Amino acid sequence: MIRSVEDLGEFGLIEQLRRYQRSRPGLFVGIGDDAAVLAGPLGYRTLFTVDMLVEGIHFFPDADPYALGRKAMAVNLSDIAAMGGTPTFATVGLGVPGGTSAERIERLYAGMSDEAAAFGASITGGDTVEAPVLLISVALLGEVEEQRLLLRRGARVGDRVCVTHRIGEAAAGLLLLQRPDLKVPEDTRTRLVHKLLRPTPRVEAGRELGRGLATAAIDLSDGLAGDLHRLCKASRVGAIIDAASLPIPDDVRRVAAAAGLDPLELAIGGGEDYELLFTTSSLTGGSHVLPRSGTPYTVIGEIVDEERGVLLREPGGGLRPLPEGGFQHF
Amino acid sequence: MIRSVEDLGEFGLIEQLRRYQRSRPGLFVGIGDDAAVLAGPLGYRTLFTVDMLVEGIHFFPDADPYALGRKAMAVNLSDIAAMGGTPTFATVGLGVPGGTSAERIERLYAGMSDEAAAFGASITGGDTVEAPVLLISVALLGEVEEQRLLLRRGARVGDRVCVTHRIGEAAAGLLLLQRPDLKVPEDTRTRLVHKLLRPTPRVEAGRELGRGLATAAIDLSDGLAGDLHRLCKASRVGAIIDAASLPIPDDVRRVAAAAGLDPLELAIGGGEDYELLFTTSSLTGGSHVLPRSGTPYTVIGEIVDEERGVLLREPGGGLRPLPEGGFQHF
Repeated sequence: MIRSVEDLGEFGLIEQLRRYQRSRPGLFVGIGDDAAVLAGPLGYRTLFTVDMLVEGIHFFPDADPYALGRKAMAVNLSDIAAMGGTPTFATVGLGVPGGTSAERIERLYAGMSDEAAAFGASITGGDTVEAPVLLISVALLGEVEEQRLLLRRGARVGDRVCVTHRIGEAAAGLLLLQRPDLKVPEDTRTRLVHKLLRPTPRVEAGRELGRGLATAAIDLSDGLAGDLHRLCKASRVGAIIDAASLPIPDDVRRVAAAAGLDPLELAIGGGEDYELLFTTSSLTGGSHVLPRSGTPYTVIGEIVDEERGVLLREPGGGLRPLPEGGFQHF
Repeated sequence: MIRSVEDLGEFGLIEQLRRYQRSRPGLFVGIGDDAAVLAGPLGYRTLFTVDMLVEGIHFFPDADPYALGRKAMAVNLSDIAAMGGTPTFATVGLGVPGGTSAERIERLYAGMSDEAAAFGASITGGDTVEAPVLLISVALLGEVEEQRLLLRRGARVGDRVCVTHRIGEAAAGLLLLQRPDLKVPEDTRTRLVHKLLRPTPRVEAGRELGRGLATAAIDLSDGLAGDLHRLCKASRVGAIIDAASLPIPDDVRRVAAAAGLDPLELAIGGGEDYELLFTTSSLTGGSHVLPRSGTPYTVIGEIVDEERGVLLREPGGGLRPLPEGGFQHF
């Protein structure tokens, strides 16, 4: 039987493709973290990541080009943030359908450029080609002091599991775009859709976490469940997440109620929050904010032995496995 | 009137987008060369380039995935070669249509990986997403000793203009694919189509040219006319190309004859040869090969004052302007 890429799934495909990575001097960490870690200038590592966005898959054809540009850059900046790094230079591959106005492409570029500049980075090259739909492929470099590098694989049993800011907002925003019939206050809709379309990469928080505060980190692109599984797998540990502790804002609860969903489905299964999920042996959560940057964070669980797997402590106190695909309400 | 990206053209678009590049410490050369030039490890510069290939635009839907993978990587390696650099690490953004077999994607990756490895580089990360057609975006890093960096902007009046190997073969190969009715010997067809589908990046030649042999270089991706114009513009010089001296192989002349074309149209206007076009004040062409690598090259013209523009000396001796878009036979 011929396997299709759907059968294999994205993570299966990445495992397969990892075989094609060859060791080479200067490669410290390759496929399997948020960014590759390469030899850099003295005392530094160079980080290297790429993301591709496709019209009709990752964004709607009528997306505002400026906001789209900002998001295309932000998702890459978020990968560098999760490594404790500072973004430096990006190249942009654009596929542009015939008939696209030059203004639209300029707005897209302006968005990418402004988002990069907001975090000290610059676009420094690109390739623009014809394509059947709009395509945006951003490759981004970053740098990080050797001692401040954050990986997925550093979590240890007993570490606390934390997340920055709030979760579930992007998933709730997406649901509102898909179901305009859902009855929620207008400011809730505006806030959540904005969070989906204009995520903020947590670069400053990542930089701070790299100063010995976090033992491991990953950015939340595919949802808490999937990304926690990946962090645990890389660190060879398990985790227990405490559902009652998750920072789910009232906005998200309102959307869940309107849609007849458990808010945990949005908070655990929904992607694109681009918050940092990290583990720590030093932070207790007592202060609620990271000391230098003031970034809010919440302790949501703890790291346990690998054999125990990844578990969810339900509000009632019971433990159940938390599958990679997210939380399904029974 | 709304300008479309077609009105603007790729080069016009790049000029527009250059405005969005911001200066930043660590940026030596940005948009406008084959790759960006960044601060690197002590004594080195880091090179950074990206190319995007789109099914139906850059390759046929039935393309052999392994050969396609090799070419996708080769066109990026060629950019690093044109800078005098050594390729190091690549990330790959893939857009994959639903229903694509996993084997097809594996073969594609194998081709990219083998091509990278042949030049000492490694794939070290990627992003695989769903897309309406197959998309391949390769971002590639390279390194080059500060003193061996080759730019487009170093050509000086009096320099000789040279090209490695032969030109026009890829254009002839493309013509044969588009017009299977053209009557040429089978081995001619095989050779030329192979040259189109499996270009060889001239990394070793680029490395050698960077040892003080070349004053400027660019790779031939868009055709001799367009790429020479870009080199001349970057160097603020003009050039006279001697039509009679162009290394056009008999295979290409045969295809041109069968199609009723002037072979110069294929050699000057056709793209995708991925040879190096370079200028030199030291090489005379007398030996026909670069001394270390043995790479064949041909002196095809000379650099002149900018005011004279870019000219073609026709076989009869007359001079005519060589437009950016290539050679049209009257």
